[in-house]
Amino acid sequence: MISKEIKDKIRAIVGDEHVLDSDLDLFSYSYDSSFVPLLPPNKPYLVVRPLTTREVSAVMKLAYENDINVTPRGAATGRTGGSIPLHGGISLVLDRMKNIIELDERNMMVTTEPGVRTIDLYNYCAEKGLFYPPDPGSWKYSTIGGNVAENAGGMRAVKYGVTGNYVMGLEVVLPDGRVLHTGGKAIKNVTGYNLTDLFTGSEGTLGIVTKIILRLIPMPKVRNTMQLMFKTLDEACNTIHRMLQSRVVPSSAELMDKMSLQAVARHNRMDISPSIEACLVIEIDGDDKEELNKQAQQISEIAAQFNVIEVRIAASTEEAEEIWAIRRGLSSAIGAMAPNRLGEDVSVPRDAFPEVVRRIGKIADKYQLTIAVYGHAGDGNVHPSILCDLSNPEEEKRVHLAVNEIFDAAIDLGGTLSGEHGIGITKRDHIVHALGEVGVSALKAVKQAFDPKGLLNPGKIWP
Amino acid sequence: MISKEIKDKIRAIVGDEHVLDSDLDLFSYSYDSSFVPLLPPNKPYLVVRPLTTREVSAVMKLAYENDINVTPRGAATGRTGGSIPLHGGISLVLDRMKNIIELDERNMMVTTEPGVRTIDLYNYCAEKGLFYPPDPGSWKYSTIGGNVAENAGGMRAVKYGVTGNYVMGLEVVLPDGRVLHTGGKAIKNVTGYNLTDLFTGSEGTLGIVTKIILRLIPMPKVRNTMQLMFKTLDEACNTIHRMLQSRVVPSSAELMDKMSLQAVARHNRMDISPSIEACLVIEIDGDDKEELNKQAQQISEIAAQFNVIEVRIAASTEEAEEIWAIRRGLSSAIGAMAPNRLGEDVSVPRDAFPEVVRRIGKIADKYQLTIAVYGHAGDGNVHPSILCDLSNPEEEKRVHLAVNEIFDAAIDLGGTLSGEHGIGITKRDHIVHALGEVGVSALKAVKQAFDPKGLLNPGKIWP
Repeated sequence: MISKEIKDKIRAIVGDEHVLDSDLDLFSYSYDSSFVPLLPPNKPYLVVRPLTTREVSAVMKLAYENDINVTPRGAATGRTGGSIPLHGGISLVLDRMKNIIELDERNMMVTTEPGVRTIDLYNYCAEKGLFYPPDPGSWKYSTIGGNVAENAGGMRAVKYGVTGNYVMGLEVVLPDGRVLHTGGKAIKNVTGYNLTDLFTGSEGTLGIVTKIILRLIPMPKVRNTMQLMFKTLDEACNTIHRMLQSRVVPSSAELMDKMSLQAVARHNRMDISPSIEACLVIEIDGDDKEELNKQAQQISEIAAQFNVIEVRIAASTEEAEEIWAIRRGLSSAIGAMAPNRLGEDVSVPRDAFPEVVRRIGKIADKYQLTIAVYGHAGDGNVHPSILCDLSNPEEEKRVHLAVNEIFDAAIDLGGTLSGEHGIGITKRDHIVHALGEVGVSALKAVKQAFDPKGLLNPGKIWP
Repeated sequence: MISKEIKDKIRAIVGDEHVLDSDLDLFSYSYDSSFVPLLPPNKPYLVVRPLTTREVSAVMKLAYENDINVTPRGAATGRTGGSIPLHGGISLVLDRMKNIIELDERNMMVTTEPGVRTIDLYNYCAEKGLFYPPDPGSWKYSTIGGNVAENAGGMRAVKYGVTGNYVMGLEVVLPDGRVLHTGGKAIKNVTGYNLTDLFTGSEGTLGIVTKIILRLIPMPKVRNTMQLMFKTLDEACNTIHRMLQSRVVPSSAELMDKMSLQAVARHNRMDISPSIEACLVIEIDGDDKEELNKQAQQISEIAAQFNVIEVRIAASTEEAEEIWAIRRGLSSAIGAMAPNRLGEDVSVPRDAFPEVVRRIGKIADKYQLTIAVYGHAGDGNVHPSILCDLSNPEEEKRVHLAVNEIFDAAIDLGGTLSGEHGIGITKRDHIVHALGEVGVSALKAVKQAFDPKGLLNPGKIWP
């Protein structure tokens, strides 16, 4: 619990209306978009919505002096429970810090507060012809601060990388309230340890990010979409390998397995032959139509080497939209197949993509579960969706055993627990398997260095 | 000093012939390629050349238990004194660990030991059509382990990034001898804090890198070189900005100022008009001649908008070599102008490049010094060369004052102390100015987390 005296001090810092403590409010901040069950102990004691770095710093200092836990929160679109307060304390919501501070067109960099929605940042830059590529699935709702905290990925990672590849510098309020600045606008920068990349993806456990400098690139002038159907997973993946080896790098390369395709077919009342094992939806971009046509031609030729059954190159924006509708409709289509859908996220070396999909198929058989698989085949990031009924305790048990085996399969194939969702609560029990005892002790040493009292986002990343 | 008993234990670990302790040997390991004066106290007590991770681990464990300092060393081509043992102890030389362990063509990744020379690694991959882009100035002599320790840059950074952009995973022996594995071959990986990027560029102060996984890209099929002469620095830099904003990204964009050009002209007996304020040497690469021609055309058109005086597009490999000879001969040409040459490395936001060059000119005037400036204008990384006679104590004093003001100018323009050489010994006194008290205390906290006894590469990065 937090005493009235401290609550009053916090109200004095951020203003009365930005401190919430009604039961309903506290409940509203006890969950996020992950599959973590709703649990009453996950309620914070207090919700605090600061507006400035100075306010964040003052709140953190007060919390530090009084040993109060703080769990930072953006739009709570995370998939692993990162913003759920596990041990009460303060839910520190950054959603009022939503200024885009500066768009530096000449250096092609934008400086922003963390509470800006990813899509708003994208649009703001796009108006000036500048491109912020990372596009996590939740980018219409997520905040850029949350993207930095989780080092969020997205479909464009195959060509453009993930959030961390764009973060040039950060302003971070440390657990004791001190304000740290890392990196900056100098492109080459080897002054001191790379703390920018250390805080990026640290899941809000090391500090509160209050300002972000992101680099941008010029917006590609044209885009197009292709759809390729294959009889086997291997042929689809081999097509991607050959493309990348030939320097034909698509801006996205999404793979859907048979189960996913059939789910979409049913949901959208489409006809997709059951002989199709894999569908690739590929986006290409470039400077002019000529360049796009050349890329589409190269991709078609490569796919032909791997017995592609059907190549569709969108002839219009409408047709491109139609193709993307399949990929975008996937989540709803799969979700409609069962009472619950558990969406997972593992990542393997690119060449292990077909094998991990096959192993997931065997795991589904073993536990009598339906698992649809799709993912970012261009970078080995796989999203298995387990369709289930979690109200059945026996089935729930099978689901958890299956998830464990999926993690094991990814690690066994040289991959890892999470490609873009983070560890948070849902994967923390597997962290030792993924990183080893020495690895986890190194994480804990870093945590201890920045948060010796263990007050910031407690209970995350490791058990 | 190290006792005979411990020396014997170390000999038992790595073999007699790989432990050196003659006076001459110790002297040979007391300096590197930086401008740190030769000082007797910089001699190590013992030089140890392990062959395997197991040996490194055993040596580190022994050193840890006996409170012996360890300074890791590759080829000692560093420019800031990173491999100089400041407080005796062991000089741990990784030059025998020179196996390239695996070239994984399908995932386009190479796994290597740290002692492999950068050029050898480049050639090994190039034979398979794969490209390891980072090309620090010393790449013919430097080791890849040293490149990782310093997060080395190079001329190709403008298009392809620096060493750290290619490091996917590391094996690191921690100061107490434990072996840590970070990252891996999964392209998207958000499992735990990003320790890979933390160790990269940590200047051998946190652990000994014993294995490195690097990603590769397909080798561009064709390259060409251009030379552009401008009457003003701003016009040269504006040309680069406009190129990058137009998505015409050269693989290198090197700028030489008037002083550098005149030095080369004198040295190579060439005629370069004194009205030329800036010369750009640009390398472009791509898939075919058509693409190169298009790029060259675009660059020429952009340069014309900024009043370029002369555009030379190499018509043959010989002509390309001839153009590059100017840039490559720079170091010798400048070196020949004075008894000593102090090469510096600062980095500023790209658009501050002309301003920092102008400020360096004013600093040269103020301290009556000759300073030639060249650098990687595409990424704001500036190398001022101070020509001087360090045997003159009064002049030496002026040189140091000038260097301090150059650092100040870079920081004042939103830049930083080092773009690609690291901090080491030579810049450690300026680290607080660059990073602030909170920043340096964060570095120290990380150091404490990994090296609580402070035994690894002591005396570096901060005073």
